[in-house]
Amino acid sequence: MILTGNEIRAQMGKNIVIEPFREEQINPNSYNLTLHDELLTYEELVLDMRKPNRTKRIKIPAEGLVLNPNQLYLARTVERTETHNFVPMIEGRSSIGRLGLFVHVTAGFGDIGFCGYWTLEMFAVHQVRIYPFLPICQIIYHQVVGEVTEYSSNKYQNNQDIQPSMIYKELMPDWEAGGDGQKTFDFEPELVTAESREG
Amino acid sequence: MILTGNEIRAQMGKNIVIEPFREEQINPNSYNLTLHDELLTYEELVLDMRKPNRTKRIKIPAEGLVLNPNQLYLARTVERTETHNFVPMIEGRSSIGRLGLFVHVTAGFGDIGFCGYWTLEMFAVHQVRIYPFLPICQIIYHQVVGEVTEYSSNKYQNNQDIQPSMIYKELMPDWEAGGDGQKTFDFEPELVTAESREG
Amino acid sequence: MILTGNEIRAQMGKNIVIEPFREEQINPNSYNLTLHDELLTYEELVLDMRKPNRTKRIKIPAEGLVLNPNQLYLARTVERTETHNFVPMIEGRSSIGRLGLFVHVTAGFGDIGFCGYWTLEMFAVHQVRIYPFLPICQIIYHQVVGEVTEYSSNKYQNNQDIQPSMIYKELMPDWEAGGDGQKTFDFEPELVTAESREG
Repeated sequence: MILTGNEIRAQMGKNIVIEPFREEQINPNSYNLTLHDELLTYEELVLDMRKPNRTKRIKIPAEGLVLNPNQLYLARTVERTETHNFVPMIEGRSSIGRLGLFVHVTAGFGDIGFCGYWTLEMFAVHQVRIYPFLPICQIIYHQVVGEVTEYSSNKYQNNQDIQPSMIYKELMPDWEAGGDGQKTFDFEPELVTAESREG
Repeated sequence: MILTGNEIRAQMGKNIVIEPFREEQINPNSYNLTLHDELLTYEELVLDMRKPNRTKRIKIPAEGLVLNPNQLYLARTVERTETHNFVPMIEGRSSIGRLGLFVHVTAGFGDIGFCGYWTLEMFAVHQVRIYPFLPICQIIYHQVVGEVTEYSSNKYQNNQDIQPSMIYKELMPDWEAGGDGQKTFDFEPELVTAESREG
Repeated sequence: MILTGNEIRAQMGKNIVIEPFREEQINPNSYNLTLHDELLTYEELVLDMRKPNRTKRIKIPAEGLVLNPNQLYLARTVERTETHNFVPMIEGRSSIGRLGLFVHVTAGFGDIGFCGYWTLEMFAVHQVRIYPFLPICQIIYHQVVGEVTEYSSNKYQNNQDIQPSMIYKELMPDWEAGGDGQKTFDFEPELVTAESREG
């Protein structure tokens, strides 16, 4: 069973926390979440599931930013949520999907007990101009059956920022914990200046 | 809880309307919906969430149409549906997904009370030939918990056609209501003819 | 209602079979499934919904394989599952989605009664190195309401391998059953050698 908008309101401060919460973001069976003004993109030639992958931070200015196709943008919601005894789930809004913008990559479900900002995985079919703080997705709540053991993990719980994948921690449990989580390039970036071209 | 196919049949004419309805489209826990014979594509260099975006209409002939990768196609179901007291949801069929054809862009959930045709957001990984009236997706129904306030909106309720995104109505509430909803190009389309090329 | 991890464990050997089953793959409201070491890609210029489409088999070696963008890879889970009286559903894991790797193409839901390996439809936004036997996705179980009629089909039930789309069986019911399910090219592959170019 999915919680109606009225039931989401009734659960606020009990099993559900959404901060900030605004009445007008309630839908018949979901609640709209908004886009924060920062993005991360990966800075690697080939991503690798066994290693941390470097990222770059991009600001979305008030006048908007054009997303390009063939590029993954990680983002986060403005809202921090906590969910107990329900399964929270992120879904795109149809108004966003109709512009060809994916907001997650087959991974809409959260875990019971998840606390934090939602990392969005954005992928655009066509160039599309986005704006900070727009209602980009919705959160949906499913009831559960069975005894609850809440989510706890060293990966994404209580995150404070956009969170790139940390699957390397799981696949490579001996990964040096004291490192800076950054991979170094094992090649020399090519330096081509006007001068060296002429030379 | 998700309605079984038998329960969908039992709810027909009560909380659920599907027109036309054909017994053979019932699945164990969903109902197959079919593709109408028209598509819309956007006609803009860059889509913009704050403006209406122009579209072009394409007919799918009986002999099929090849969809191209890197292109969003909006389509609609043949079926008009009404759903009360359940959450309706559109999902791809596995036979369609196994050919690399997305039928929605992270926006499968509808709202309790939605009445109309379902707009599909189609995106193909490889070139793929599609045919009109084929069973392209399935509708799934979730039970709800809590008091129901049905969907009503000036965006997509009681639509009669494929519906491009109307998020600009929400982001720019002062958008001129009397306009034709069409953006004009602010550049002159380049005219290149065989003659001008030779000239 | 979605089954908690504890309820999935309690249903094992009753309504749910997962083989092999490992306690550490249980999540708060799902169970992680792992990637087998083989992939299929289509070998057609244009895929066609009315015909079988040829495929090629690729092995994922222990040192990993780099997936390319703009390419669909069919894969399967190591695990064979059986589900009675619940709706099984496949979802990506967020750690995988955060690397831009889709594991299904809008077709996460299975049917009540489905028995077999899960065919995954993988699509990468960026080049990404994957490894055999990694936990790639999760299975989620929904309770149902209504009388159950289990899935039975000549398409995917009791499959033993990765299963390409068989929608042609449905769209073209007279398709020659005795054939090898392989389409033949109706053009001569172009032969261009250094010699013929100079000639």
